[in-house]
Amino acid sequence: MEKTIIMRKIKIGLIGYGTVGSGVVKFLQKRHEYIRAKYGVEFVLRTLCDRSIHKKDTRGLGKARLTTKIADVLDDKNIEVAIELIGGLHPAQEIVTTALSRGKHVITANKLLIANQGKELFRLAKRQNRQLYFEASVGAGVPIIKTITEGIVGNTYNRIYGIINGTCNFILTEMTKNNLSFSKALKLAQEKGFAESNPTLDINGMDSAHKLAILAYLAFGKFVKVSDIYTEGITQISHDDIAYAESLNLTIKLLAIAKRHENVVEARVHPTLISKEHPLASISGIYNAFYLNANPLGDILLSGEGAGQMAAASGVVSDLLNLASHGEDTHLLCNLYSEAPNFRIRKIDQVKTRFYIRFMATDKPGVLSTITGVLGRYRIGINSVTQRAHKAAWAVPVIMLTNYTMEKNLRLALEKIQKFSIVKSKPVAIRMENLW
Amino acid sequence: MEKTIIMRKIKIGLIGYGTVGSGVVKFLQKRHEYIRAKYGVEFVLRTLCDRSIHKKDTRGLGKARLTTKIADVLDDKNIEVAIELIGGLHPAQEIVTTALSRGKHVITANKLLIANQGKELFRLAKRQNRQLYFEASVGAGVPIIKTITEGIVGNTYNRIYGIINGTCNFILTEMTKNNLSFSKALKLAQEKGFAESNPTLDINGMDSAHKLAILAYLAFGKFVKVSDIYTEGITQISHDDIAYAESLNLTIKLLAIAKRHENVVEARVHPTLISKEHPLASISGIYNAFYLNANPLGDILLSGEGAGQMAAASGVVSDLLNLASHGEDTHLLCNLYSEAPNFRIRKIDQVKTRFYIRFMATDKPGVLSTITGVLGRYRIGINSVTQRAHKAAWAVPVIMLTNYTMEKNLRLALEKIQKFSIVKSKPVAIRMENLW
Repeated sequence: MEKTIIMRKIKIGLIGYGTVGSGVVKFLQKRHEYIRAKYGVEFVLRTLCDRSIHKKDTRGLGKARLTTKIADVLDDKNIEVAIELIGGLHPAQEIVTTALSRGKHVITANKLLIANQGKELFRLAKRQNRQLYFEASVGAGVPIIKTITEGIVGNTYNRIYGIINGTCNFILTEMTKNNLSFSKALKLAQEKGFAESNPTLDINGMDSAHKLAILAYLAFGKFVKVSDIYTEGITQISHDDIAYAESLNLTIKLLAIAKRHENVVEARVHPTLISKEHPLASISGIYNAFYLNANPLGDILLSGEGAGQMAAASGVVSDLLNLASHGEDTHLLCNLYSEAPNFRIRKIDQVKTRFYIRFMATDKPGVLSTITGVLGRYRIGINSVTQRAHKAAWAVPVIMLTNYTMEKNLRLALEKIQKFSIVKSKPVAIRMENLW
Repeated sequence: MEKTIIMRKIKIGLIGYGTVGSGVVKFLQKRHEYIRAKYGVEFVLRTLCDRSIHKKDTRGLGKARLTTKIADVLDDKNIEVAIELIGGLHPAQEIVTTALSRGKHVITANKLLIANQGKELFRLAKRQNRQLYFEASVGAGVPIIKTITEGIVGNTYNRIYGIINGTCNFILTEMTKNNLSFSKALKLAQEKGFAESNPTLDINGMDSAHKLAILAYLAFGKFVKVSDIYTEGITQISHDDIAYAESLNLTIKLLAIAKRHENVVEARVHPTLISKEHPLASISGIYNAFYLNANPLGDILLSGEGAGQMAAASGVVSDLLNLASHGEDTHLLCNLYSEAPNFRIRKIDQVKTRFYIRFMATDKPGVLSTITGVLGRYRIGINSVTQRAHKAAWAVPVIMLTNYTMEKNLRLALEKIQKFSIVKSKPVAIRMENLW
């Protein structure tokens, strides 16, 4: 092989030797010779820090210093790159801040940190003339950060859609394709290692909201606070609605959505009905997908495994190789912080979408006219109505697809409709998106 | 806005003011202020060269020098970046070579040039310490070059699949979804500006073959000669086969395929049957898609508009912005040329795939046993057989899906079967791929 990059060694300090951390080490060990030969660079793991390092399997780590002290990485002037893989806000924030302040480049996979502190950290990186990489913070090894900030740089965005939580997508896929119940699908996800033992942040949508905050910043140039993102999880999705949707050629995905209309931004995470014909509908199991409407490029789709040890490790290793290839005076585009025009956040009440609504109603004449009467008074147009046979004798499902309507109007209308004695249970409402 | 990159001006010389060239100029004009404010860089179009520049609309180009002489770009020491958008091998090769030799960075969208001369040009760029960008050469603005070389760098590849010709995908989509004939679909593509007035290189697969040569190099580290890529276009695809495939839950796409088994590489472009459930099956119209099996990342899909003025212009402008962000001593990973182990090319005769085969045969007993007898003698296993009713009285279609078989055996078997009097027309054979 020809040498194409001046051979050099880069000394690394790795903090956090959990699933992702050990994946990174495994990747670098396995590909050591390949990377040396092809890219002319050798990554030397100088220090490995973990609070329970002595309980871990650290065989084959060669001369790496094993430590429980974060300072052993931060104080070491020979370490060029600190890799932060402990997650959570603290002490990750202090680690990254100190590392940058001391002139180290930093790689992190920490979505919480970037979503909450990205702005300050990017500014610090710039001031220090260091680089802060965070590809694995969203979509693991799927290079969505690089795609937005470099791959299609120069474009602006009107809409971004993401299937960005593999656990939820796996559960919804199992419920849809294999008819599993929510709890059985969740259990299966845990058995396969696709869900945490405490899956709350996945299934309540908060994990997606953090990632969406990062994506919205990259696409629109303004951080959306996680607290400004309307977030709804997947625990309320029923088999019945999945089946009814299916018969309407629709499928349910937990979508993270951000839209920009001039200087107004809306950002939300919720179960969403989309056409089965759309490529996003075929993204199943633990796969993540990002669907961006870029201007002038047009729609672009990026998909891959968004979780898992080696997928996340791949994101970190790619960051390392990119770092090694960049000249000292490189201005990393994903670190650029330029405050975009003052965006106003559109509250969920003011968002206009279409809805799938389902009422369980008595099977008597007049029911439809009562319901549509209320909807009409709130200026909610109906696109289609289906009344279904149902095993329960006490009520039949009435399914309506609305036209575009303001969320607040729908909420008020449903509250009113719910009070009628002909309506036998709380109405179900699921937002729809026309992705094309 | 804060300034995040030191404000600087980059002087550009653009050669080739056709569809893409004028798209680039339009993009830079429209986003001039946005790019200046966000990225702190100003691209100054110093010289615009086109052999018929005096027939073009050059209003609004400000102080740009208009010329028909290529030397006016190449000889100008003030021009930092030469953008080559004339296409074809000559004089593009001489332009790029001279520009690099004289210390200019180069951006090109020329697939023919990179597929044929990439190796030499990357070496030259390295020797000159300049950068050669070519994102728009494959997939227009869809950043597949950057994804492979930077986004998921560190991974290796076993298989790459591409829908990389928008014209063909548009035609097949129209034939499948709207039941158009091949010639009507082609005409529609031409009317919509999706196909050249001479569409030969698109529909015969050669355009895809050039792009595949580039992708195979990036993925495997070795240029595959275009003449080593087995190439078959879409002109032979019939409505009947589209419909039969549909009923088997399959759809036909023109796929560019490259696989690596140890040190053996196969590369081919041909109509391919894939499962309708796979995300690639839902890539319709002029969209391109790239489906890569990366190790250890896993499968990754990237899709977007792979042709058109602004899509291609987006690729060029992204290259410009990346160039502007990189420090002088950056080693552009897509320019890296490291000769991989000596790959051997597997000839199409030796390739093992599954096949869809259709015979038009007389509707008599014994037909099936005659056909399967010959297939068996060539060790071709049958996975399923369907005999269809057909409007023609003279014969009925017999459709078989084979197991994995060597291409050569299938060809010999079909030659033999074709000679039987019970077989009424040339058998149809379409390769199948299991993408998962």
